[in-house]
Amino acid sequence: MINLFSNKRSSIMTKRLFQIDPWVIKTNELAIADKRLQESMTSIGNGYMGMRGNFEEHYSGDTLKGLYLAGVWFPDKTRVGWWKNGYPKYFGKAINSPDFLSIPISVNGEDVDLARIGYSDFQLSLDMHNGVLRRSFVGEFAQDVQIKFEFARFMSNVTQQLGLISVKATVLSGQAKLVFQPSISSDVHNEDANYEENFWELKAHSAQSDNRYSLTVETKSNPFGTPRFTVTEEMQNIVASSVEIQREAVLTDQAVAEKITVDLAANQSISLDKQVAVVTSRDVAEAQQIADATQILDESKKLSFEDHLQAHNQIWQQRWAQSDVQIDGDPAAQQGIRFNILQLFMTYYGEDSRLNVGPKGFTGEKYGGATYWDTEAYIVPMYLAVTKPEVNRQLLEYRYRQLPGAFHNARQQGLKGALYPMVTFDGIECHNEWEITFEEIHRNSAIAHAIYDYTDYTGDMSYVLNHGIEVLVGIARFWADRVHFSQHAQKYMIHGVTGPNEYENNVNNNWYTNQMAVWVLKYTLEILQQVSTEKAQDLAVTDDEKAHWQDIIERMYFPEDKKLGIFLQQDDFLDKDLRPASSIDPKERPINQHWSWDKILRSPFIKQADVLQGIYFLNDQFTLEQKKRNFDFYEPLTVHESSLSACIHSILAAEIGEEEKAVDFYERTARLDLDNYNNDSDDGLHITSMSGGWLAIVQGFAGMRHQNGQLAFKLFCPKKWQGYAFKINFRGRLLSVKVRHDQSEFSLLAGDDLTVKVNGEAVELQAGKVATV
Amino acid sequence: MINLFSNKRSSIMTKRLFQIDPWVIKTNELAIADKRLQESMTSIGNGYMGMRGNFEEHYSGDTLKGLYLAGVWFPDKTRVGWWKNGYPKYFGKAINSPDFLSIPISVNGEDVDLARIGYSDFQLSLDMHNGVLRRSFVGEFAQDVQIKFEFARFMSNVTQQLGLISVKATVLSGQAKLVFQPSISSDVHNEDANYEENFWELKAHSAQSDNRYSLTVETKSNPFGTPRFTVTEEMQNIVASSVEIQREAVLTDQAVAEKITVDLAANQSISLDKQVAVVTSRDVAEAQQIADATQILDESKKLSFEDHLQAHNQIWQQRWAQSDVQIDGDPAAQQGIRFNILQLFMTYYGEDSRLNVGPKGFTGEKYGGATYWDTEAYIVPMYLAVTKPEVNRQLLEYRYRQLPGAFHNARQQGLKGALYPMVTFDGIECHNEWEITFEEIHRNSAIAHAIYDYTDYTGDMSYVLNHGIEVLVGIARFWADRVHFSQHAQKYMIHGVTGPNEYENNVNNNWYTNQMAVWVLKYTLEILQQVSTEKAQDLAVTDDEKAHWQDIIERMYFPEDKKLGIFLQQDDFLDKDLRPASSIDPKERPINQHWSWDKILRSPFIKQADVLQGIYFLNDQFTLEQKKRNFDFYEPLTVHESSLSACIHSILAAEIGEEEKAVDFYERTARLDLDNYNNDSDDGLHITSMSGGWLAIVQGFAGMRHQNGQLAFKLFCPKKWQGYAFKINFRGRLLSVKVRHDQSEFSLLAGDDLTVKVNGEAVELQAGKVATV
Repeated sequence: MINLFSNKRSSIMTKRLFQIDPWVIKTNELAIADKRLQESMTSIGNGYMGMRGNFEEHYSGDTLKGLYLAGVWFPDKTRVGWWKNGYPKYFGKAINSPDFLSIPISVNGEDVDLARIGYSDFQLSLDMHNGVLRRSFVGEFAQDVQIKFEFARFMSNVTQQLGLISVKATVLSGQAKLVFQPSISSDVHNEDANYEENFWELKAHSAQSDNRYSLTVETKSNPFGTPRFTVTEEMQNIVASSVEIQREAVLTDQAVAEKITVDLAANQSISLDKQVAVVTSRDVAEAQQIADATQILDESKKLSFEDHLQAHNQIWQQRWAQSDVQIDGDPAAQQGIRFNILQLFMTYYGEDSRLNVGPKGFTGEKYGGATYWDTEAYIVPMYLAVTKPEVNRQLLEYRYRQLPGAFHNARQQGLKGALYPMVTFDGIECHNEWEITFEEIHRNSAIAHAIYDYTDYTGDMSYVLNHGIEVLVGIARFWADRVHFSQHAQKYMIHGVTGPNEYENNVNNNWYTNQMAVWVLKYTLEILQQVSTEKAQDLAVTDDEKAHWQDIIERMYFPEDKKLGIFLQQDDFLDKDLRPASSIDPKERPINQHWSWDKILRSPFIKQADVLQGIYFLNDQFTLEQKKRNFDFYEPLTVHESSLSACIHSILAAEIGEEEKAVDFYERTARLDLDNYNNDSDDGLHITSMSGGWLAIVQGFAGMRHQNGQLAFKLFCPKKWQGYAFKINFRGRLLSVKVRHDQSEFSLLAGDDLTVKVNGEAVELQAGKVATV
Repeated sequence: MINLFSNKRSSIMTKRLFQIDPWVIKTNELAIADKRLQESMTSIGNGYMGMRGNFEEHYSGDTLKGLYLAGVWFPDKTRVGWWKNGYPKYFGKAINSPDFLSIPISVNGEDVDLARIGYSDFQLSLDMHNGVLRRSFVGEFAQDVQIKFEFARFMSNVTQQLGLISVKATVLSGQAKLVFQPSISSDVHNEDANYEENFWELKAHSAQSDNRYSLTVETKSNPFGTPRFTVTEEMQNIVASSVEIQREAVLTDQAVAEKITVDLAANQSISLDKQVAVVTSRDVAEAQQIADATQILDESKKLSFEDHLQAHNQIWQQRWAQSDVQIDGDPAAQQGIRFNILQLFMTYYGEDSRLNVGPKGFTGEKYGGATYWDTEAYIVPMYLAVTKPEVNRQLLEYRYRQLPGAFHNARQQGLKGALYPMVTFDGIECHNEWEITFEEIHRNSAIAHAIYDYTDYTGDMSYVLNHGIEVLVGIARFWADRVHFSQHAQKYMIHGVTGPNEYENNVNNNWYTNQMAVWVLKYTLEILQQVSTEKAQDLAVTDDEKAHWQDIIERMYFPEDKKLGIFLQQDDFLDKDLRPASSIDPKERPINQHWSWDKILRSPFIKQADVLQGIYFLNDQFTLEQKKRNFDFYEPLTVHESSLSACIHSILAAEIGEEEKAVDFYERTARLDLDNYNNDSDDGLHITSMSGGWLAIVQGFAGMRHQNGQLAFKLFCPKKWQGYAFKINFRGRLLSVKVRHDQSEFSLLAGDDLTVKVNGEAVELQAGKVATV
């Protein structure tokens, strides 16, 4: 995927809007000029829904409005000049949900709008313990009226359909007639809509008895036969004030609001808890939606905002207990890694096997909230260690559910088997560029590799022997049909692909793609030997088929240069005008923003790990010498203009003993968004690359590997750190690993005794004992 | 360009809607089910404007409305998922002009609509002498009313802004109140509009004094800064009838019409000449447009339809006198070649150097009416021989005018020099697929080759030494910057291109592209030696530059396989799963309509001549043996799914003595549209490939070549023909060539004596003498 990352080491233009703090993202400044960036960083979510850090009250300055519901999307039409056969006809995108955040406020008729009013004591903070966003300021109004506003919000992890928004206003001086208009509105737009269209049609909105307000919308019809979604939002406002308040319903064309009016003198206050239930046709039929939403709100009103928060917080503490990473001696790195874990968990925690991890989660429109191979390549390896196996299993079930879509995609290309999509919501490819859709087919192998990863890490064979082998056979059949035999070379080949390095297109024999295809065939044959007779009958893989797969395994062509001792990214690679990325004029970095596409394509510059990605995945197949030679050849050519690049390089650098480079790459990935390395976090956060910092620490610095159920480590501690510690789940156990310069500690916090390998030595771990190495 | 052509020889599904006749395209049947196809075939134009064979009266059946004004276009926005740097942001398209054809008619309140009324004696004919379209039928109406309608129309070649439409109605039986509503209307749409938008805004419409009606429209604003066009259409209706007629003006939202009412008894008739002047801001400022149109109509009304036609016809007879091709013994082939010449001349005859030959001319929307390399590759070689040099010179001036655009295009790619666009109206690339825009850069050399072709054929050095050398140096500088030097191979290379075979993309070292780039450098160096000192100073080509060009010429890499004795279309070509096109399941032809794009790309199948195109252009550089080997290798791999493919193959087949194949390929190209070989002529005619039949006869069967001002022929006559004859303009002379099986005749119809080479022998041509060979 395209996800820019600048590695102008000498001239990285970072932008740090928030203070360094181990557990809080906070600032005392409203970043008017960087409002979008500030909004991205203060996004919150709960896996079911989420939103950017937009303001509750009206804000007339630049802002990117964004509230999203997981799995609720629209097939936006896209046309190019000349259509290609088999081309997906739409680009799926997660669309802005009806706005349930807004609470416009006025003071004596004056709009509370931080782009216009005077204010002081601005504070904005995201608590990383639990994903609660708080904000406060003192607004200055005509006639010396001063009012303190305090906002807090979170998306409940107890009841995922529930959003909780609290605002309190206290008059510090003067007399104020305050009007709050908490609303729910279908008047929302995507900035990335092709033709400024609105994707929603209002079906009903009303003010119900008991101060309940609801709004039901449906995605507009589409010509592509993808399902329409109906969403109902219901709101109740719990108001508390020592003085009398007036409440009335306000219905407009596209919205419903409650108008709450109160006259406050100095030191008087009002607090308003806006509780919103959001129910979608993904779970609840339209006819039942209002009833369900009403029931959620009936339950919700029994608890105060703080009570809700306490229950929500408990869930978060359980998560952190399994996943926290501590870094001593580098508060910025500490904050970075926690921010990444928080944002990942706010995006996905495995509750729903129909969902996945969108590259921008709930923090922006880009990449349409759809699923990419990022999940299998970068998220699974981390989630395996920081969550219970059930969470990962959901990610595998997600792909199993979409197997029919994968068969469809392969059929669209006239090929057998299953082709998992590059971009999808429902298993059907929904991206519209042939060089991605048709050619970046290496993604298929990552799906298979995640099955291996899960199975080997957890020891749970139940997935691979049932659902998993269906996926594997589908992918294997795809590869067996997709290769061709070159009579000229007497080798199997794979022509016309795009590898992980998307700065190449339509190349022949991408080494990574060929390697991974062969790996899939091998692994599938291996698993096939273990499945039940019934399963084998269902799968009906014939002996001829197996023999053909074996033939491909034995006669696949892998481009390499023996003299240089390197694998070739693709045919012809050495014919390029080879020169290091450091020779590029810094003013032309990132090249993606400065060079025309053709120049990028024929350049030798590599967007993200490609050959090295293969060496990472198939780590045990290569010697240290091979790893070194390939790293030394390819890294200097790599511009790291994908956020997914740095972590793989960090891990391999660590493995080959290039510790300084390992740390350097770690730093690029861990605070990518917090320091806005890419200068593009205003669009949203790089969610799927947020595992990169964790991977760099655990697989890189701590050198964790797993093979045949064995955990192994090869430790080092970055010079500038005093130490670091992390926890991992492994086969029913919880391990604590603390790495220091002098000595490191392994402890078994839960589960049975275990032997791990550390720096080549076996280390016995027993409950209650600390093993030092 | 994508332009499908099916070569299912065994199962070609042709559709012939018109009778065979040497000079007329005619039928007695209204093809309801193939109305669009019939409309394409009956398109007319005059270089300035043109239209499909839509009906004047209302027609409620399926139809593709199309009236177009040359050079009047709109930048239609197109977006794809992920934008590439340097990508053109719009796709330019010729838009439907305001409709000036329509004349709705009613009879006693009943709509005359051939999709609904009864009718007999339907006749439709396009006279190839002069491009006049005639139609007549007897309509049957309630109460036994029968009326004969006769229509005729042409776009004047005397006054290009003038369209002449005549309708006559004669009551055969019964009493009829006839209402005609000749109109001009801005309510027009393009079927290929991305979002069903209307491209025009009405500025004014009015009924003026003296029964004049006018309508002024402007293309709507666009965000790309391309010019808006204003168009004024003015109409006058000259009505003649023996009975009284009523006339009144009818203004509606988007149109203006004259309502003409007449009551006719049996044997009474009315005739109506609709004369329309069409003036555009390309030539006339908006404020002046009505005045100009009025003046045209003031002049026009002095002449009857028949008088207008006579003057128009005279121009056509002059054209035919220089260009007619006669085929004896094959009436279908005879009709085909004349139809092609007619349609070409109706599209372009060199009056305006700002215009060019759109792939569909005025016959459809596809390809947007823009300019492609088709012109230089396929049109110039024919026009050189069948028109005066001035006509071709205009095509060269067109490219010179657009040199600033070509510099812009190269700059967009970060390259020096001039890159002529793949698709354009104004010199700026306006196509939006990177594999075309960025990579199909071979087009640049075709522009240069046309300069050579013109110069060598006409002997006129004045273009190449002035405007031409600027174009050549621009293109040469582009190539010198676009190549790279491979240290590994110690050769210059061109990576990342699409050759003429568009069933490959982003390939390395396309032999054709490399050959033509080197040819451009050579030719430019050669011409540079001949330019004036002042010109040389202006061009400022340094010695270093020249030395660098020479180095590229000497060290360019050309892929070839010495064992097979063939040039390789590109690197890796032999690694493909090589098998002949005949092995493709006929049900899957054309593959473009059945196979996914990725499958096509990695297949060995070739859309149109690629290596063979290079052999065609650089004909004298290769031995007959080389030509044979390459033809024998590549032709069987070629699916000819471009309408531009067959003619090149016909010419080369003729040259290597494969006469049967030469004739076979001729037949595919000459009646491509008339027999709807592609099953896609309903969209419009394949205008730029209409030269193919002529080229196949003259360069193929008659083997005409020119080099260093010398004409040479190598004759054969297809077995099934008795003979064929054609005329060619050459350096102030007009030659007649008549080829027969037994003996052939060369005559000099005008100009100085000339020696030509025929079948290797010198033949002296003198005025008044027939040379037989």
